[in-house]
Amino acid sequence: MSKFYSSSLQKQSAELFDVSSDIDAFRGALLRQFQSLRQNSMTLAAPLSPEDWMVQSMEDASPIKWHLAHTSWFFESFILKIYDQDYKVFDDSFSYFFNSYYQQIGKMQKRSERGLLSRPSAQQVKDYRAHVDHAMAVLFENAEEDLLPKLKNLIDLGCAHEEQHQELMQTDILHGFYQNKDLPAAYEPLSPYKESVLHHISNDNKDRDCHDNGHQAGFDAEWISYPGGLVETGANLDEFAFDNEYPNHKYHLNPFELLSRPVSNRDYIKFINDGGYRNVQHWLADGWAYARAHNWEMPLYWRLGDDGHYYQYTLFGERRLNLDEAVRHVSYYEAFAYASWADAWLPTETEWEVAAASDCQDQFDKGHFLENGCPELSDHYIKRSLGDDHTHHGLQNMFGTVWEWTQSPYTPYPGYKPAAGAIGEYNGKFMSSQMILRGGSSATPKGHVRASYRNFFPPHVRWQFSGFRLAR
Amino acid sequence: MSKFYSSSLQKQSAELFDVSSDIDAFRGALLRQFQSLRQNSMTLAAPLSPEDWMVQSMEDASPIKWHLAHTSWFFESFILKIYDQDYKVFDDSFSYFFNSYYQQIGKMQKRSERGLLSRPSAQQVKDYRAHVDHAMAVLFENAEEDLLPKLKNLIDLGCAHEEQHQELMQTDILHGFYQNKDLPAAYEPLSPYKESVLHHISNDNKDRDCHDNGHQAGFDAEWISYPGGLVETGANLDEFAFDNEYPNHKYHLNPFELLSRPVSNRDYIKFINDGGYRNVQHWLADGWAYARAHNWEMPLYWRLGDDGHYYQYTLFGERRLNLDEAVRHVSYYEAFAYASWADAWLPTETEWEVAAASDCQDQFDKGHFLENGCPELSDHYIKRSLGDDHTHHGLQNMFGTVWEWTQSPYTPYPGYKPAAGAIGEYNGKFMSSQMILRGGSSATPKGHVRASYRNFFPPHVRWQFSGFRLAR
Amino acid sequence: MSKFYSSSLQKQSAELFDVSSDIDAFRGALLRQFQSLRQNSMTLAAPLSPEDWMVQSMEDASPIKWHLAHTSWFFESFILKIYDQDYKVFDDSFSYFFNSYYQQIGKMQKRSERGLLSRPSAQQVKDYRAHVDHAMAVLFENAEEDLLPKLKNLIDLGCAHEEQHQELMQTDILHGFYQNKDLPAAYEPLSPYKESVLHHISNDNKDRDCHDNGHQAGFDAEWISYPGGLVETGANLDEFAFDNEYPNHKYHLNPFELLSRPVSNRDYIKFINDGGYRNVQHWLADGWAYARAHNWEMPLYWRLGDDGHYYQYTLFGERRLNLDEAVRHVSYYEAFAYASWADAWLPTETEWEVAAASDCQDQFDKGHFLENGCPELSDHYIKRSLGDDHTHHGLQNMFGTVWEWTQSPYTPYPGYKPAAGAIGEYNGKFMSSQMILRGGSSATPKGHVRASYRNFFPPHVRWQFSGFRLAR
Amino acid sequence: MSKFYSSSLQKQSAELFDVSSDIDAFRGALLRQFQSLRQNSMTLAAPLSPEDWMVQSMEDASPIKWHLAHTSWFFESFILKIYDQDYKVFDDSFSYFFNSYYQQIGKMQKRSERGLLSRPSAQQVKDYRAHVDHAMAVLFENAEEDLLPKLKNLIDLGCAHEEQHQELMQTDILHGFYQNKDLPAAYEPLSPYKESVLHHISNDNKDRDCHDNGHQAGFDAEWISYPGGLVETGANLDEFAFDNEYPNHKYHLNPFELLSRPVSNRDYIKFINDGGYRNVQHWLADGWAYARAHNWEMPLYWRLGDDGHYYQYTLFGERRLNLDEAVRHVSYYEAFAYASWADAWLPTETEWEVAAASDCQDQFDKGHFLENGCPELSDHYIKRSLGDDHTHHGLQNMFGTVWEWTQSPYTPYPGYKPAAGAIGEYNGKFMSSQMILRGGSSATPKGHVRASYRNFFPPHVRWQFSGFRLAR
Repeated sequence: MSKFYSSSLQKQSAELFDVSSDIDAFRGALLRQFQSLRQNSMTLAAPLSPEDWMVQSMEDASPIKWHLAHTSWFFESFILKIYDQDYKVFDDSFSYFFNSYYQQIGKMQKRSERGLLSRPSAQQVKDYRAHVDHAMAVLFENAEEDLLPKLKNLIDLGCAHEEQHQELMQTDILHGFYQNKDLPAAYEPLSPYKESVLHHISNDNKDRDCHDNGHQAGFDAEWISYPGGLVETGANLDEFAFDNEYPNHKYHLNPFELLSRPVSNRDYIKFINDGGYRNVQHWLADGWAYARAHNWEMPLYWRLGDDGHYYQYTLFGERRLNLDEAVRHVSYYEAFAYASWADAWLPTETEWEVAAASDCQDQFDKGHFLENGCPELSDHYIKRSLGDDHTHHGLQNMFGTVWEWTQSPYTPYPGYKPAAGAIGEYNGKFMSSQMILRGGSSATPKGHVRASYRNFFPPHVRWQFSGFRLAR
Repeated sequence: MSKFYSSSLQKQSAELFDVSSDIDAFRGALLRQFQSLRQNSMTLAAPLSPEDWMVQSMEDASPIKWHLAHTSWFFESFILKIYDQDYKVFDDSFSYFFNSYYQQIGKMQKRSERGLLSRPSAQQVKDYRAHVDHAMAVLFENAEEDLLPKLKNLIDLGCAHEEQHQELMQTDILHGFYQNKDLPAAYEPLSPYKESVLHHISNDNKDRDCHDNGHQAGFDAEWISYPGGLVETGANLDEFAFDNEYPNHKYHLNPFELLSRPVSNRDYIKFINDGGYRNVQHWLADGWAYARAHNWEMPLYWRLGDDGHYYQYTLFGERRLNLDEAVRHVSYYEAFAYASWADAWLPTETEWEVAAASDCQDQFDKGHFLENGCPELSDHYIKRSLGDDHTHHGLQNMFGTVWEWTQSPYTPYPGYKPAAGAIGEYNGKFMSSQMILRGGSSATPKGHVRASYRNFFPPHVRWQFSGFRLAR
Repeated sequence: MSKFYSSSLQKQSAELFDVSSDIDAFRGALLRQFQSLRQNSMTLAAPLSPEDWMVQSMEDASPIKWHLAHTSWFFESFILKIYDQDYKVFDDSFSYFFNSYYQQIGKMQKRSERGLLSRPSAQQVKDYRAHVDHAMAVLFENAEEDLLPKLKNLIDLGCAHEEQHQELMQTDILHGFYQNKDLPAAYEPLSPYKESVLHHISNDNKDRDCHDNGHQAGFDAEWISYPGGLVETGANLDEFAFDNEYPNHKYHLNPFELLSRPVSNRDYIKFINDGGYRNVQHWLADGWAYARAHNWEMPLYWRLGDDGHYYQYTLFGERRLNLDEAVRHVSYYEAFAYASWADAWLPTETEWEVAAASDCQDQFDKGHFLENGCPELSDHYIKRSLGDDHTHHGLQNMFGTVWEWTQSPYTPYPGYKPAAGAIGEYNGKFMSSQMILRGGSSATPKGHVRASYRNFFPPHVRWQFSGFRLAR
Repeated sequence: MSKFYSSSLQKQSAELFDVSSDIDAFRGALLRQFQSLRQNSMTLAAPLSPEDWMVQSMEDASPIKWHLAHTSWFFESFILKIYDQDYKVFDDSFSYFFNSYYQQIGKMQKRSERGLLSRPSAQQVKDYRAHVDHAMAVLFENAEEDLLPKLKNLIDLGCAHEEQHQELMQTDILHGFYQNKDLPAAYEPLSPYKESVLHHISNDNKDRDCHDNGHQAGFDAEWISYPGGLVETGANLDEFAFDNEYPNHKYHLNPFELLSRPVSNRDYIKFINDGGYRNVQHWLADGWAYARAHNWEMPLYWRLGDDGHYYQYTLFGERRLNLDEAVRHVSYYEAFAYASWADAWLPTETEWEVAAASDCQDQFDKGHFLENGCPELSDHYIKRSLGDDHTHHGLQNMFGTVWEWTQSPYTPYPGYKPAAGAIGEYNGKFMSSQMILRGGSSATPKGHVRASYRNFFPPHVRWQFSGFRLAR
C-alpha cells in the first residue's frame, strides 16, 4: 500500500488572467489548471490496483476506472469534439461505455453494469486520459483568441465536474471495499495523522465513550443568531458556479439560529442510546419505512464492537470511532429524526447560505478538504472551535468537514433555465425527490465549493460524506 | 345502477355560532355539520355493492369499506375514546383493521392487504358507522360547555379528514373498476349532464378532434400578470385549516404570470402528437425513467380508439374524450414535461396561492366540485372562461376543476411544528418526496378547499384528479 | 355461521349403465352425477358471504366466486359450446374472466387479479351456474344417442375438475381467512365432532404435549415390507382417470418398506425440537434457501402459544393442535428434511401406488374425505390403526387423510401424449418443477381419488392439505 | 490476445497402478494426474487479464479468479487440512471467500458478490494455487502407504471437480464478455480452425442459409431403434464416478428410438421460422411464462443480422452462425418446445445412457471436447456422421459435442445416500427442480464424462453449452 495521496495532490493555482491583456499567460494558466486537476485524479487512483478499479458495489456507485474515463469523455465530448476539428476520437465505443446520463448524446452502458467492463482495461483508460490530455494541451496552445473565454467557461465546468468525481471516487471505493469481509484500507495514512489518531484513541477518548452522559446534545456548541429579513442568495458572477446556483434571487427569512458546529459522533450516540432508531415519532414516514426495511441501527460504516465501543470503517481501514468528529454517512432521514429528537430543525439551504456568506469568508482555509492531509476528519477543527477555554467564535466547520443536509428539496431557483443541448442535462433534470446539501466534506477538493454551492442527493442515501447541523 | 349521488348530497351548513352566546344552537350546528358530512359518505357508497366495497387495486388505493370504517375510527379514536368516558368501543379489532398510519396508536392492517378484509362485513361497517354516529350525537348533546370549543376543532378536523376520504373513495373505485375488462360505470349520470355530454359529442366536438391543429397551446387562454414582491401566505385563523397551512409567513416573489385556465385535453394532445412522450429533453430524469418503465403514452384512463379518437374512462364508464376539459390524471412528471415543452414552468405553490387569494374569492361558486351535479368536468366553465366573444376575465377554474400540480415540493412552513401525540402524524411525517397540488377537483366536496389548502402526492401518481396550469 | 356443509353434501351415485342397453337410464344417471356434483360446490360456498367469495390472498389461490364460475365455464367451453348448437352464451366476457390457463381458448384475467372482480357479482355467478346447469340438463335429455359415450367422458372430466376445485375452495379460503387478524372460522363444526375435539383437548391430550419424549419418531407405527420387482403402474381403463395416469407401463422396483401411517404432529414436533429447522444438513439447497427466506419454524397455520402448546388454524378457527393427527400444510422441502433427519426417504410415486393398489382396496371407506363429517383430520383413524392392543394391520390412512408428498417429480409416463386442442393444456404443460402427491386429504371429495391418481404441486407449497409418510 | 489454449492443454495420463505392487509409481502417477489438471486451469485463464478475471455477470456465473481459488480451496479443505497435519493455511479469510456452498464448513461470500473481490488479487490467487500445489506434491511424496487409496479417491474427486470448473470458466467468461457491447473475443482461434471457419462461411454455407427449406427437421439424420426391456444403469465400480451415479439399479424401458445426431442450428431455425417461439401449444407453462418474460426469440448468443443471417457470439468473438453445428445455449424449455413441435420427445436419461453404453464406447475419441483444438463445435463430426454417401452409422456426437437435455428431473437413484459430512453437500442437496443433461460438450475436458455421467441444471438455464437430441 502506497503512502496516502494527499501529500502529492496538486494545489490548484488561483491564477486569474485577463484574456485581453496577456493571451499567452492565459493559455498557460488554463493549462496549469487543467493539468493539476487531471493529475489529482490519478493521484487518488494510483494506490489502487486495476482490479480495485473495477469494483462497483451498487448502482449508485461507479468503478474507479469508469470515473477516470468518464471525466475524460466529458472533455472529449463537450470541448474536443466540438472545438477541435483536428481531434481524433480515441475509441468510438468509449462514448457508449463512459457516457453517464446524457441521453441527447446517445445510448450508454447500463449504469448497474459499469463494473462488468474489464475491457477497456485500466491501461487503455490511462492511454485514453493521456490522449485527451495531449489534445487539450494542443488546444490550449492553438485555440483562436476569441474562443478562449468560451473555452475557459467549459474548462471550469469540466474541472468542477472532475472534482465532483474525485469525491465520488473516494465514496465509491469506500463503499466497494466495505463489501469485502477483510475491510481493506484503500490508503495508508500519513504518519502524523496516524499518530494523532492513535494518541487520541489511547488517551483523550478513554473516559468519553458512548455511554458518556455528561453532555446534552449541543451543550458544547452554541446557537448563533441571524436576523433574517429579505436576503439575496445565489452565485455571484465573478467566479465559476453551476447553472443551478443561478439566478440570484431574493428570499425572505424569519430570524433563525444555527448551531455553531455540525452534530458530532458523541451527540449522535446519545440519540442512538435514547432509542432514536426505535421511536417512530421522530421520523418521516418514508424514512421510518426505509430504516426498518434496511435494519438501520446506526450510521453507515459503524459497528458496535464486543467491547462496547463503536468502530468505523474508513478509507484507512476500520478504526475506533472518534467521538469528536462530525457524524457522517447518515441519510437525510436520520438527520431529520435527530433534529426532531433534539427539538430543532435542519436549516433551509437559504439560511445555511446566508450564514455562510456572512460569517465564513475566511473559513475555506480552515476546512479539512481533500488536500489537507486526510479525507478523514480529525478533531482538530472541532476542538479548536470549542476552544480550550470554551469560548466560542461563531460558525465553525461550515466548509470541508461534512456535507450538511438541509431541509430544502432540490428545486430550480426562480427563473432557472437549463442550458440548451446535452450540457443542459448536467443539473436540471435531477430536480426531483432530492435534498440539498451544503458546505463540502473532507473528501471535497479544496476550492471546489463556495457558499452558494448546491449539492444534492436522495434522502435515503448514506454513502456520501454527509452529516448535518441544527437550526431553530 | 342507481341515480347518481350528487342530487342527494347534503349541502353543508355554513352556520357559525358563538359558543358563549347560544350553546344549544352551537350543539345543533355541530350535529348538523357532522351528520350531513357523514351522510354524504354513505351517499357516495350507496350505488356500490358490498363486493364493490372490497376492491383494492393497488397499495395506494383503499376499498370503499375501509374508507367508511377508517373515517369512523378517526372520530372514535380522536374524540370518543378521549372525551366520552361512557363510550363503548364497537369492536376492539377495528382499531387494528382501520388505523391507517398512526403508529403511535398501535399496530395496523398491512396497507396492501386492506382488500382482503371480507370481514368485518359491509353490514358490520354500516353498524359501526351508526354506532359512532349515535355516540357522537350523544356527545354533542351532553358535552360540558367548556369542552365545546375543543370539540369543534376536532370535529372540523374529522370532517375535513372524511371529506378527503370522500374524494379518495371516488379516485380509488375509479382505479379499481378500471382493472375490470368491462370498464363498469360506478355511477349513473344525471340526465341533464348525460344529455349535455351526448350533445357535446355529437355536435360540438365533431370537427375538433385530436388532429385539430387550429390552436396553439395556450392560444385560447391568456397570461395574467402578477407583480410579486413580498407577500404573505398561509391560512388565516378565522376558519379551519390543516396544521400544514401554518404558520403564516412572508415570501418574496419575482413578478410572474399565470395562464388563465388549466391546460386542456386539446392542448395536451398537441404535446402527445409532437412526440412529448418520446423526447427525453423535456423530462426530469426520474420522470423519464418512470414513464419508460411504465410505457406511458398518454394520461391515465385514456385509450386511443381504432377510430383515431381518444376515449376516457370515468366514473360513468368510458366515453369519448371531451377536448375542452382540463387534462387530468397526469403525474407531476408529465406536467413538468408539458411545461418544458411549452417553454413555461409550473407555478410555485406561493405564486398559485397569491393569485388565488387576490383574484378568486368569488370563484368557489363557479367551481364544479362534487356537489355540482357531476364529479366529471363539464366544459361549461372553461367555455365561459373563454367567453363567446373571446374576451377573457382573469383566472378561471382555480377551484374545483382539477388539482393543479405546482413545482413546489411539500415542505414545512417556517416554524411549523406537528401537534403532539398521534394526531401529529396527520400531515408532518409526509413532508418528503411529495409535490404540492392546489385548488381542488370536481371530486372534491364543496367547502373543503381554500386558497391556502395544500394537497400533496408523490410525483409519479396519476390516479388522482390531477392536472395543471402554466406559469412563466 | 351456518352448520357445516358435510351433512348436506350429496353422495355421488356410483351408477354405471351400459349406454346401449338403457339409454334413458343412462341419461338419468349422467344428470344425477352432474347435479350432485354441482350442488356440492354450492354447499361448500353457502356459509360464506359474497364478500368472502372475493378474497384472494395470493396468486396461487383463487376467490370462491372465481372457482364457482370457472368450473361452470369449463362445462360451457368444453361441452356446451361444442356439442349444443342451441346453447346461448351467458355473457361473452365470462370467458375472459373465468378462463384459468387455456391459452388456446383466448386471453384471460390476470391470475393475480382474480380478487378484483367485484363484478360479475356473486348473484350473477349464481345465475351463470343455473344457466349452465339448465343447459346441461337439456343436453342430457336431448343429446343424440351416439354422442352420449363421448359426453360421458367429458362429464367425467368436468366433474373431476370441479371436485379438484372443491378442494381448492377449502384450501384457498383457509389461506384467505388466515390473513385476517381475527382468524375467523369458515365453517361451524358439527356438534359431535366439536365435542370429540373438546373432549380430546381437555382429557386425552393433557399429558401428551409437545415436550413428550416418550415416543421415537415412528415408534408407534410399523414398517410394511414390499418385495419390489417388475410392477405395472398407471390407471386401468374401466374407470375415469386423468390423461397423466396413462399409459400403463412397467417399472422395476427394489424391495422397499413403507411406514404404516403418515407422520403425525407428535412426530413432527420432535423434529422441530431437535432443531430440524436450523440444521442445514437435512435440507435440499433450494429448500434451505426458501425456508430461511420465509422464516419457517413450523408448518403453515401453526402458532406456538405462550402456554407452550402449539395451536393450529383450521377451517373451524384456531384450536389446540391435535398431536395424533397427521402433520399437514408442510412443503416437500420440509417433508424431505424430516425424512433425512429420520434417516429414511420419501416413497417414490411408484412405490406408493404399488403398495396402495395391493393393500388398500378396502380403505376408501375408512378415509376421512370431505363427506365424512369434517375436512379436519380427527385422530379416529390413526388410533384405530394403532389398535388398542398395539397390533397393527398394514397400511393405514393411505386415502383421504393427507396428500402425501412423494420423492417423484411430475413427469410424463412413457408414451404420454396430451390430448389435441385446448383440453390438452389440462395436465401436460405443468410437467416441470413440480412434485407428485398421492392419496387425497380430508378436503378431497370421496370417490375423487384412486391408487393411480397423481396430484402435483411445486416443492415450496404449503397451503394444500399436504403431509407425508416415510419409506426406506 | 494469446494463441488459444488448446494446444497447450495437458493430456491427462490414464495411468492406473496397483498401490500394493508399486508404491512409488503410484505416488508419481497421482502427482502427474494432479499437476496436469492444475496446469490446464491456468492455461484456460492465462489469455485473460486480472481485470477479466473479476467479471461476474450474474449470480449463476463466477469470476475466473474465484474459480481458480475455489478449486484450490477444495483440495485444501477436503485433503490438506484433514490429512496433512503440517499444512499451513495460506490465508484464513480464503475459506470465507472461496467456499461455494458447503454450509457445514462455515459462512461464505455471498454468491452474487463474488465479482466484488478485487482483493485477494489475481497474483494472490496464483500464489495460493502454488501454495496448495506445493503442499499437495509434498503430501503425495510423504503420505503413509495406507492413506494412499483414500487419497486417490479424494484426488479423483478434486480433479473431477476442477474439470467441472474448467468448463464453467468458459461458460462464465463467455456470458461475462457478452455483456460488453464490443463483444470481445476471449481467445484467439488456432489457425487451422480459423481457416476452416472462414472457408466454411465463404463457400460451404452460401446456399444453406436460414431460409433454406430443403430439409425437414431430422431429414438428414436417422432414427436408431432400441429394444428396451429390463436394463441396468449407473456407474460401474472400476473407474471414478460421482456419488449421484450410484447405486446401480434396474430399470424397465419400453422400446424407443433416438435420433442419430443432436438437433442442428439448421433444424432449429426451421422451428423459429415456423413460429416456434410464438406458439404456446408446444411449451410447458413455466417455459412459456419464462420465455415471454425474457423476450426469447432465439437461442442465447444469437443475433439476426440486417443481412438476414444469424450471427453467434462465441469465445472467439461473434461469427456467422454455422448451420451444421449442433444447436446450443438453449434451455430445457426450448428443447421441450422443439421436441413437441417436431412431434417427438426428449430422451429419458436412462434411454440416453443405455444407448450410449451400448453403441458409443469408441466415440470418446471422436468427440470434440476441450482438448481437440476448439471449444467450438466444428461441423466435422456431424458431416462425418452423415457420411459423404449419406449412409448413416448409428449414434453420433453423443460425447463432447453439446450437453444434451433429457426429460429426466435430477433425482436420487434408488438407495442413494450422500456421503457424511460437508463433502455430502457436493451433489445430493441439489436434487430438486433441475433436469439431467448427458454427454459433455466441446468445453468439457476430455476424459471427464462417461455414459453414466449426470450433469444437471435448472430448466431455464441457457449459458451452458446445452443442446439436445430427439427420441420417440
